[in-house]
Amino acid sequence: MNTLSKPTNHAHSALKTEGGKVYFVGSGCGDPELLSLKAHRLLQSADVILFDALVDKTLHDYFPRRAETIYVGKRCSEHSMSQTDIGELMVSKARLGATVIRLKGGDPSIFARLAEETDLLSRHNIPFAVVPGVTAASGCSAYSGIPLTHRDCAQSVKFVTAYQQAGGADIDWKHLACESGTLVFYMGLSKITYIAHQLMAYGMDCDTAIAVVDKGSLSDQCVLISQLRSLETDLLTVELSGPAMIIVGEVVNRRASISLELLAEPCADMWALLSFG
Amino acid sequence: MNTLSKPTNHAHSALKTEGGKVYFVGSGCGDPELLSLKAHRLLQSADVILFDALVDKTLHDYFPRRAETIYVGKRCSEHSMSQTDIGELMVSKARLGATVIRLKGGDPSIFARLAEETDLLSRHNIPFAVVPGVTAASGCSAYSGIPLTHRDCAQSVKFVTAYQQAGGADIDWKHLACESGTLVFYMGLSKITYIAHQLMAYGMDCDTAIAVVDKGSLSDQCVLISQLRSLETDLLTVELSGPAMIIVGEVVNRRASISLELLAEPCADMWALLSFG
Repeated sequence: MNTLSKPTNHAHSALKTEGGKVYFVGSGCGDPELLSLKAHRLLQSADVILFDALVDKTLHDYFPRRAETIYVGKRCSEHSMSQTDIGELMVSKARLGATVIRLKGGDPSIFARLAEETDLLSRHNIPFAVVPGVTAASGCSAYSGIPLTHRDCAQSVKFVTAYQQAGGADIDWKHLACESGTLVFYMGLSKITYIAHQLMAYGMDCDTAIAVVDKGSLSDQCVLISQLRSLETDLLTVELSGPAMIIVGEVVNRRASISLELLAEPCADMWALLSFG
Repeated sequence: MNTLSKPTNHAHSALKTEGGKVYFVGSGCGDPELLSLKAHRLLQSADVILFDALVDKTLHDYFPRRAETIYVGKRCSEHSMSQTDIGELMVSKARLGATVIRLKGGDPSIFARLAEETDLLSRHNIPFAVVPGVTAASGCSAYSGIPLTHRDCAQSVKFVTAYQQAGGADIDWKHLACESGTLVFYMGLSKITYIAHQLMAYGMDCDTAIAVVDKGSLSDQCVLISQLRSLETDLLTVELSGPAMIIVGEVVNRRASISLELLAEPCADMWALLSFG
């Protein structure tokens, strides 16, 4: 089957854009200034903003005052709203003609349950679009100085979620342990010693470097550099609160000495003051 | 070894920020409005901008007029400037006290030879920072409606470069072919039939879905949906010019019907007009 498509061939779209619509917007990782220009523009047009736990609080300054803002976050087992309720809320607001922004931390296409929510909108004939964001791996990499790929030692990078679906299959540790490129674990802080243990148990070199980037790209970011074999001991010396990104592989040893102070915003609310129309 | 670091503990940094500095900035994928607020702000402060082939031309409207802009792109074998020359240019400009923006397509930490350039700056004691961007996989995913991960069928996503270093080891096809998550090939258009062939030869199901997202996120984006076994035939029916992203896995079958027209910018040069004194 060859399905070729141009952006404009969604026959149903023209009809529905008059009414409500939903934008799935990636807010980027941590630092609110990582928001894209497009995301910023669309936020200003929002009637309703549904935002996640991973959307940093400082980003709320960018929300237009006239918009209704609803927290629908869930962190680990603390669900403030079920997935079903989030879906119903999104549909009901869009049906009233609202421009709904579903703001997600990082990039919506990576570990953000995007497909479940877009499927629901499709079933209700509500038009939607996705605005990509800086995924947490990219953000943590940039702000820690650890590259994700490297011409000499990492021809690939793999993003894995440590948070498996209830009743779902466990991670294929055998496959992961013989990974020659970089491994990045999302949502893995609560399972970090298990991850290191499993990688070693399935044959990964115990001297393999591992980094934990805690609160990546935020002003209180903290980076722990260790090896699989010594991680458990090293973890005792630090306090990590999450969200955290775990990076495994030779790239950790190639960490560059970046000057984070170069990235600070001269005026904290510069972007919050900006608005269009 | 436990190396714990806070962002402010680079002892050398305070001294050097008075002089020249280099920002490695990810421009995002294609659509210039995917530029981050931070990247936009820093561009306005640039004395010199060194930009790549993958930085879309429309983004040049965002360059401040007073900045010196130098094309240092390379596409496939057409090198306009060698890596050594780029490095020397960057160092010499920074040594003169310039704020240099090294603008790269996508995200600088993923397949962008970042480490080689940061190593050089470190050797010359020139301070630098990295601004992450929307990597091409995220951009192509959002604008094609193909998610990169999915709770039901893709617990991981792996980015691979099809462009191997001269004399370097070939891709570990055996390992790739038994990948249960999503595979994304960067810079793979010229090798696309080889990629499909190798995956099948090493045991991947011939019915596995494959997508090619050509000029992802741009107004002339084109998406080809096929399967490994029929890809070669299907490619005859289309004209793909690149840059293109190749996505392999069940997520291709879960493609959502997005309304791309919702993302269009109301005023083409809205952001180009914006500047901060």
